[in-house]
Amino acid sequence: MTADILDGKAFALGLRGMVAQQTAQLKARHGLVPGLTVVIVGDDPASQIYVRNKGKVAAEMGFLSDTIRLAEDTSQERLLDVIHGLNNDPAVHGILVQLPVPAQIDEGAVILAIDPNKDVDGLHPINAGRLSSGQNAMVPCTPLGCSMLLADRFGAGGMAGKRAVMVGRSNLVGKPMAQLLLAEHCTVTIAHSRTRDLPVLCAEADILVAAIGRAEMLGGDCIKPGAVVIDVGMNRLELDDGKARLCGDVNFDQAKEIAAAITPVPGGVGPMTIACLMVNTVTAACWAGGIDGAMAN
Amino acid sequence: MTADILDGKAFALGLRGMVAQQTAQLKARHGLVPGLTVVIVGDDPASQIYVRNKGKVAAEMGFLSDTIRLAEDTSQERLLDVIHGLNNDPAVHGILVQLPVPAQIDEGAVILAIDPNKDVDGLHPINAGRLSSGQNAMVPCTPLGCSMLLADRFGAGGMAGKRAVMVGRSNLVGKPMAQLLLAEHCTVTIAHSRTRDLPVLCAEADILVAAIGRAEMLGGDCIKPGAVVIDVGMNRLELDDGKARLCGDVNFDQAKEIAAAITPVPGGVGPMTIACLMVNTVTAACWAGGIDGAMAN
Repeated sequence: MTADILDGKAFALGLRGMVAQQTAQLKARHGLVPGLTVVIVGDDPASQIYVRNKGKVAAEMGFLSDTIRLAEDTSQERLLDVIHGLNNDPAVHGILVQLPVPAQIDEGAVILAIDPNKDVDGLHPINAGRLSSGQNAMVPCTPLGCSMLLADRFGAGGMAGKRAVMVGRSNLVGKPMAQLLLAEHCTVTIAHSRTRDLPVLCAEADILVAAIGRAEMLGGDCIKPGAVVIDVGMNRLELDDGKARLCGDVNFDQAKEIAAAITPVPGGVGPMTIACLMVNTVTAACWAGGIDGAMAN
Repeated sequence: MTADILDGKAFALGLRGMVAQQTAQLKARHGLVPGLTVVIVGDDPASQIYVRNKGKVAAEMGFLSDTIRLAEDTSQERLLDVIHGLNNDPAVHGILVQLPVPAQIDEGAVILAIDPNKDVDGLHPINAGRLSSGQNAMVPCTPLGCSMLLADRFGAGGMAGKRAVMVGRSNLVGKPMAQLLLAEHCTVTIAHSRTRDLPVLCAEADILVAAIGRAEMLGGDCIKPGAVVIDVGMNRLELDDGKARLCGDVNFDQAKEIAAAITPVPGGVGPMTIACLMVNTVTAACWAGGIDGAMAN
């Protein structure tokens, strides 16, 4: 038996279609145009690509989309000024500062400066706290995308009582994902670099989410037969012939023979992340407009 | 072999002594007197006792201690006015609104109204978020007390890699306790009412924390030999002879034959909670005074 492939690319396309549709409705019914502004500091080539892509998708959604490009040597004070301006701009519903920022800028100060209700990356501590305490929150895009794939697989209430193991405990993925799994009434274990007997632990998981950042670290011995596996990893594996290929944190070829369902890399979680940024922007616009039409949460 | 008894009563007394000492130093060196104001709405007899006790201990610490008593029919608006006044009072470093509040008042609105830096109960979502993302936070008193007992037992770094199972997922105890265990690098599982095979799961725990609220629900079959058991429960068990006794969520008599160490009920976690309220008040006073002398966090 081979696992079902959880096609994040297709799911994300559908999700983007729904966002575009809801955006059109918000315009028609409420005169509200979701606005997303991305701020990038410096010239990191990978960041430039990400930012361009976000702007492109936002425009496709029908958003008012803007990108603010600041020089590599921008001071923290200047960046905070820009953020405060966006906080006060009623046309801007979502603010995303592309990370990492150059060394002269304190990332924590940047995150704290963003209005939590416009924090479409979900990184402000108050959003982490809202999520933890069961209130409406901006949820970081990657775990939100993972939870949508899981909700689609399991259906309403279908995760209750399942054993979930979250490998990784970052503020961006592991911790919010654990909260989302807990909200679905999973029994949730958070594992990390200090965890002992990781394969044994993982092999108990009905739902295994890997966000480690190490190529194919979780082999077939980590997979429970019939598990649903969500692979957040996106690693570059150098091959003997000098070429390279992208892979996840899970050994896909081994896992797919054991799991019931698994996300591929690429084409699994990755495409969900940017789609969920669009979802969060619509949610933020609905909050700002006092409209009970948030797609997520 | 019988388990070591983790004597929370004795530990809390020592902690209170340290708080009193630090309070004296803050006065002498900085002219700073930690101020704790407790607000109680209505006449619930149990709440009255708790509030009286908190005021008494605060006075013993040398704090500027105040209790504001509001009538049962106080409006939410009036209570929020009182809270805003305390937020703006520089002599007040800690604000505690005794819960529950009467039905006409929204508990969530009360929690959100308290200045997070004066939120000595640690219930504001931003404090939950700060704790989750590893920043300085006001940590709810009960989990803070549990983590101090564990830190005392295991020593610095001694919990890293241990399997910890937190039974209960309340915002007041379970969720923040899970974060504290994670910060100590435990592999943390959060179990709850929807968890399947709870005894098997608990019996894997090197550190077992129970905050369920059901008398002696966890029996000897839930205890791993050599585990350290923290029992947050405080239940009234009616006896056949018409009398009653207090007991925890763990069957103490069974567990003490298997565990390496266990908190008794009463005399375990309970006394730590009020002592940690005093710790939090000193921490809040240090934050307000810009003094790097917080005892906890």
